[in-house]
Amino acid sequence: MITSGIDVGSVSTKVVLLLDDEVKYLVRPTGWSPRDAGLQTYEELLEAVGIRERDVQCKVGTGYGRVSLGFIDKAVTEIHCHARGAGYLAGAGGLVIDIGGQDSKAILTNDQGKVLDFVMNDKCAAGTGRFLQVIAAALGVDVSELGELARGRQPLEINSMCTVFAESEVISLLAKGEDKRDIIAGIHRSVARRVWGMASRFAPAGKVIFTGGVAKNPDVRERLARAAGCEVIAPAMGQLAGALGAALYAKELTLKK
Amino acid sequence: MITSGIDVGSVSTKVVLLLDDEVKYLVRPTGWSPRDAGLQTYEELLEAVGIRERDVQCKVGTGYGRVSLGFIDKAVTEIHCHARGAGYLAGAGGLVIDIGGQDSKAILTNDQGKVLDFVMNDKCAAGTGRFLQVIAAALGVDVSELGELARGRQPLEINSMCTVFAESEVISLLAKGEDKRDIIAGIHRSVARRVWGMASRFAPAGKVIFTGGVAKNPDVRERLARAAGCEVIAPAMGQLAGALGAALYAKELTLKK
Ligand code: SF4
Repeated sequence: MITSGIDVGSVSTKVVLLLDDEVKYLVRPTGWSPRDAGLQTYEELLEAVGIRERDVQCKVGTGYGRVSLGFIDKAVTEIHCHARGAGYLAGAGGLVIDIGGQDSKAILTNDQGKVLDFVMNDKCAAGTGRFLQVIAAALGVDVSELGELARGRQPLEINSMCTVFAESEVISLLAKGEDKRDIIAGIHRSVARRVWGMASRFAPAGKVIFTGGVAKNPDVRERLARAAGCEVIAPAMGQLAGALGAALYAKELTLKK
Repeated sequence: MITSGIDVGSVSTKVVLLLDDEVKYLVRPTGWSPRDAGLQTYEELLEAVGIRERDVQCKVGTGYGRVSLGFIDKAVTEIHCHARGAGYLAGAGGLVIDIGGQDSKAILTNDQGKVLDFVMNDKCAAGTGRFLQVIAAALGVDVSELGELARGRQPLEINSMCTVFAESEVISLLAKGEDKRDIIAGIHRSVARRVWGMASRFAPAGKVIFTGGVAKNPDVRERLARAAGCEVIAPAMGQLAGALGAALYAKELTLKK
């Protein structure tokens, strides 16, 4: 059986093809058109894997751009897809924390992987990937370098939660001659504290599974574990949790037919 | 009698000399050192007016930088100084709304000009002068031009309250070919709604007095009046309300001696 999950996020579009239990995937920037990003990434993956569109039995869309996808069979909220995908990657149950390009969410799940409750921030750039992007630009480094630069460094105190005010603080710390790497560590701690401040209402909840683009940053991971006071599992394919969950829903739908 | 009020804000430092009922003033950027900005602006004003420091009977400091001023006789919170100064400029009583460079506040006062209650935002750049600064930079215009550019224009809908997300919206509206002036009008309406959302808990409260650097922007003024559904008085020297209030406190202290 072949099914697909298409997760069109604000920053990147993730497509998964599930060939029985084998996972094929492709990640592309979303750009201006969520509709085109979804379709093109899907078609590109089909071609790369050598699968014909008519052999895909069911396609489920998720993420903020799911509403503009014309070619899918069903749209499912990212909360449900993320929970499902994270449970598949790290074992069902516990608290799923997802930090994406423009939002962050905490999802409480039970041992069957069902969503019990969740909380989401998509109104404020603080505590999202966008915050890291703004700070990286101010420091003149690429967002993908942040994790390695900050690892093991002594975090400086960043007083402002607000992205705009924190950016000014960072510039003034640089002007004072502070080390870039300690500034980044401070920024990572600020993200971890902010997100844990939102997620901690569900704690303790067993294990913590960390997904989304920001989960690839090893220093944020460590500082989130410190804020949470427990181990944080960041599965290798964590950025794909939403798309994978969508593909699993598609599989379930096919089996029910 | 000569007294002085020194209001060291995050963006600009305002100094007032009160010579009986005559008001002399000077506004300078705060820059990196609130301490130097306060002292230098004060000394510069003394020299410009031709008054010797020993003839100033009392000096009161206010604003976020007041704690670092070594030469003042007393520090008073900006809430009290703003209420006092606004009442002096526009008649005591009513609701004082102040939008400064990095904060905004709403102060409910009684007919004696006493503070009954207040609410303040200094955590989030949205609804402050900083928001306008970020947007002006994105549009390539000076913040002082915004008011005239937007006057009488049809405001476009800005969906994000967050400064960072609103900046992206503005850039994407520009890319779509929307008129800069309609975008600015939309931004002004967003600031007015945000601030009125905070201040409206005190409404109706008689008249609304609008002070702070952003009150110089005629279009924000109009849109605030529309959001409030009542007349909004923006006194000519509204940016000086804090410093003026501080000088009035200094006068009261001198009379009590
Ligand atoms: S606190 Fe800063 S980042 Fe958050 S909504 Fe306000 S402006 Fe945006």
